[in-house]
Amino acid sequence: MQNPFDDTYFMRKALQEAEIAFDKGEIPVGAIVVIDDKIIARSHNLTELLNDVTAHAEMQAITSAANYLGGKYLQNCTLYVTLEPCQMCAGALYWSQITKVVYAARDEQRGFIKMRTQLHPKTKVVSGVLEAEASELLKRFFIEKRNLN
Amino acid sequence: MQNPFDDTYFMRKALQEAEIAFDKGEIPVGAIVVIDDKIIARSHNLTELLNDVTAHAEMQAITSAANYLGGKYLQNCTLYVTLEPCQMCAGALYWSQITKVVYAARDEQRGFIKMRTQLHPKTKVVSGVLEAEASELLKRFFIEKRNLN
Repeated sequence: MQNPFDDTYFMRKALQEAEIAFDKGEIPVGAIVVIDDKIIARSHNLTELLNDVTAHAEMQAITSAANYLGGKYLQNCTLYVTLEPCQMCAGALYWSQITKVVYAARDEQRGFIKMRTQLHPKTKVVSGVLEAEASELLKRFFIEKRNLN
Repeated sequence: MQNPFDDTYFMRKALQEAEIAFDKGEIPVGAIVVIDDKIIARSHNLTELLNDVTAHAEMQAITSAANYLGGKYLQNCTLYVTLEPCQMCAGALYWSQITKVVYAARDEQRGFIKMRTQLHPKTKVVSGVLEAEASELLKRFFIEKRNLN
């Protein structure tokens, strides 16, 4: 029998977080952290609401997961995020030594691949899971924002 | 008359923060943010106490300064930090569009220069201010830590 808790299942949860961000007028990026098929952190981008460039979904998810685990290293954890992490978030993931990162949409301008930010050598990366849905939400956000201004 | 509020003056304040971190058993890195010769944020590394890899001195200083200013961009601000920022912190500084970054000691292994993390094109960088004092404090920390284990 197929495990229902696959990368697509969890990315859909991250997308739900991105939609919450969208509804708040934030750039719609959502993240979750999973260990043993259990979600231990949920977050979405809050940079506008908090007036804080560090309030990316991933940063909050890392802090929250570490708080749940009672330790700062995210061994055996997977981060699901709807947009490719930036330099800052990839740098935080590096320090966390997280086991796996799964992202949906590419950020070809400011994603960690273009910026050549190093993740931890232990970290496995998977990309493109629900990419179309995540990209679509981001595009819709920027179109609506443009029309409002 | 010489302005007493020069880079050395403010780096000494950042070093005081690093010493507070030292006394707490944290890797001794301190940071402050200054605008118009006024300190608007003070912080030191709290990764151990908070169990949080994102709790670097710079990250807290950025959040705190933005909170003080009521806006997320750190225009006309200078960050003084006793150790060269890492990928994560340089990535956060990139987003903040901070005007100037001054650091004391080089981090030749994991500093943003070695890691090729991009700061914002607007950001001016000054290095080596009170470098000997900041390096000495870090060395003393790691020697004491080794002797305790």
